[in-house]
Amino acid sequence: MSVDKISLKEKFLLVDQYWTPKILGEVNDSYIKIFKAKGEFVWHQHDHEDELFVVVQGTLYLKFRDKEVVLNAGEVCIVPKGVEHCPYALEEAHVMLVEPKGVVNTGDVDSEKTVKAPDWI
Amino acid sequence: MSVDKISLKEKFLLVDQYWTPKILGEVNDSYIKIFKAKGEFVWHQHDHEDELFVVVQGTLYLKFRDKEVVLNAGEVCIVPKGVEHCPYALEEAHVMLVEPKGVVNTGDVDSEKTVKAPDWI
Repeated sequence: MSVDKISLKEKFLLVDQYWTPKILGEVNDSYIKIFKAKGEFVWHQHDHEDELFVVVQGTLYLKFRDKEVVLNAGEVCIVPKGVEHCPYALEEAHVMLVEPKGVVNTGDVDSEKTVKAPDWI
Repeated sequence: MSVDKISLKEKFLLVDQYWTPKILGEVNDSYIKIFKAKGEFVWHQHDHEDELFVVVQGTLYLKFRDKEVVLNAGEVCIVPKGVEHCPYALEEAHVMLVEPKGVVNTGDVDSEKTVKAPDWI
């Protein structure tokens, strides 16, 4: 089997909507996803899955009920299962996610931003 | 529970050995690890686990039996389970890994570079 590299920069060029996760690949039971952030997402939580956020470009803000975390490029954050969070970005930010395959972006909340079955990119 | 960010740059400053993975955090059944690469690692494979490589700084080369993949900063590679590989770097490279908790860095091979229980950093 042949293995190839993935350029995050090239993949982000193909993303034309905010808050719409796209699947880059699979690692064991998880997907590697990317999304572009701008504006505010929705408050939600994932009852059974931790999420890894890796900021590739720009600044992503993660609001929690007790604090706010500011993630610049090269910074990562692990949001544990069951922890409510609301991401937002003042300017466009590029983010990579690692999370179990079944995760829906808006977790326990139904929203116009919900993407139940992300496309591969 | 309180959530904090992790700066990859700050964590890499604390790594003073090559090819010695350090654990940054856990996401579901996986660890997020970092390591500094320079020189050649060892040929090995992981029989049951895929590995995600994310190059944060420098250039990491992944030799496979049929090809070589050159990963620059901002590029990622998923090495599927059972695929032999040998990483190397001509100059120091900084790499983040996501892989199941039980993974040993040298897979099926015992080597002086084997780290069975990585430290947290």
